[in-house]
Amino acid sequence: MSTAKSSHPSLIPHDDIHGYLQTAISLARRAGNLIHQLRYPAQAKELDIETKQGSADLVTNADIASQSLIFSALRELYPNHKFIGEEDSVKSQLTNQPTWIVDAIDGTTNFVHGLESCVSVGFVVDRKPVAGAIYNPSRREMFHAAQGRGAFMNDLPIAVKKCDTLQSALVLTEWGYIRDPHAVRKMISANERLIIANVRGIRQLGAGALDLCYVAMGRADAVYCGVAGEGWHPWDFAAGVIIAREAGASITKLDGSPFDLEVRSMACATSNILPQLLQVVNAE
Amino acid sequence: MSTAKSSHPSLIPHDDIHGYLQTAISLARRAGNLIHQLRYPAQAKELDIETKQGSADLVTNADIASQSLIFSALRELYPNHKFIGEEDSVKSQLTNQPTWIVDAIDGTTNFVHGLESCVSVGFVVDRKPVAGAIYNPSRREMFHAAQGRGAFMNDLPIAVKKCDTLQSALVLTEWGYIRDPHAVRKMISANERLIIANVRGIRQLGAGALDLCYVAMGRADAVYCGVAGEGWHPWDFAAGVIIAREAGASITKLDGSPFDLEVRSMACATSNILPQLLQVVNAE
Repeated sequence: MSTAKSSHPSLIPHDDIHGYLQTAISLARRAGNLIHQLRYPAQAKELDIETKQGSADLVTNADIASQSLIFSALRELYPNHKFIGEEDSVKSQLTNQPTWIVDAIDGTTNFVHGLESCVSVGFVVDRKPVAGAIYNPSRREMFHAAQGRGAFMNDLPIAVKKCDTLQSALVLTEWGYIRDPHAVRKMISANERLIIANVRGIRQLGAGALDLCYVAMGRADAVYCGVAGEGWHPWDFAAGVIIAREAGASITKLDGSPFDLEVRSMACATSNILPQLLQVVNAE
Repeated sequence: MSTAKSSHPSLIPHDDIHGYLQTAISLARRAGNLIHQLRYPAQAKELDIETKQGSADLVTNADIASQSLIFSALRELYPNHKFIGEEDSVKSQLTNQPTWIVDAIDGTTNFVHGLESCVSVGFVVDRKPVAGAIYNPSRREMFHAAQGRGAFMNDLPIAVKKCDTLQSALVLTEWGYIRDPHAVRKMISANERLIIANVRGIRQLGAGALDLCYVAMGRADAVYCGVAGEGWHPWDFAAGVIIAREAGASITKLDGSPFDLEVRSMACATSNILPQLLQVVNAE
């Protein structure tokens, strides 16, 4: 886990990537367990936390605790690396330098309501995800991957499911926080076209990083974002993209061009159905 | 658990209802564990069952096994009762007689893909749900309720979450299998109106019976169906309705009139937000 060579991103030794991945796994798990404890402070209180604590406070406290745990560890381990997260203190510009991109709680609304959420820790070099870990504490599911080393859930190898046609695909989508009527119409119309094209089903599960993991392990066949500017941020997909790609998924921008962490437009599916997905989603 | 008196539905003794509830719980759990074993026959095969077995076969086998387990036990225990399920052999007309209404797998698409699904066992008298159990084997969550006795998850009491405005509500919806363009447009437009009305979020989780349980325990604030005839069947909500109601939810048809098991139109939410929900959903 030497950091000396990491200022030459394209020359990062193989062994270092292994170390970065282990760091990502360890921190995602520790932070995931921490937010889970904050959400469910004791078994007896599990079902009524909402009445005892405002949801805003809950999110703030858990977010701060998770961020603080992750970034303080990363800063100590890798003082020469860059760090990007959702909160202002780490909302810096992406560069070619080795950079940790973290979502302290992915799926915050879900987290408040007790639906699935996760912690996402991605490691990016030359603006490209090379290692990442995503941990869902309520299901105790750890997803991880590093470039060229495959993708795993709880240390078992995972792969995208065989899916030959859009009609047999379960497609994930997230409407997020968009409320502008024109943008909502564009976003929802893409869903409508998919339904009319007779996809097997559409699900909105509420945590984008997990959506990518679920495509990676075959629980779903595709996920996309960005039809109407509702796209995700780098911390939503930095870890998920490497996990999905190592599991065999194809990932592009919605226009079919190469995926770009800094552009809020993404489609992820098996290579078989990605062209069909893009065609339907873009067919305004 | 005498059945002699059950031909006089309104006179079913309290102790009998307790027995019926225990039967529902036991059968939902046994059938749930059975379909889970069929879905994940061994730990090592967990992640690649889809490539080894066609999804149609998987559903057929698991459905038949679950139905068979439940209905053969019910027929033996309660030879004078009626039975209704999704499959043809028990697709009979609802009467005032004591009737078991069962969904052997609720969320079949989810089941195939490895997302959440459940078994739902409801007991209905005078066409009204009086006891029910819903079991999600992958989370090991058992929801149950009987009229006047409260609702429970894994034997802990549950209640709907306090939610004063639609703007703080997480709303569940299921698009199901509707593909007719006009119906799809109606169904999706209701979602669009909710988003524009600034609900906190919309989720499509894929298992209707679980949606009702999640409202019951506060993971979500509302669920509805039937805007465009995409409504659920009696087996989708027979058990869930009594669980949600005993947890404090209000349940009506989409027009606000009393809920009717035989009408494919339903809205379930806290009494505070149900009128707002109906207004937005119906505001074409």
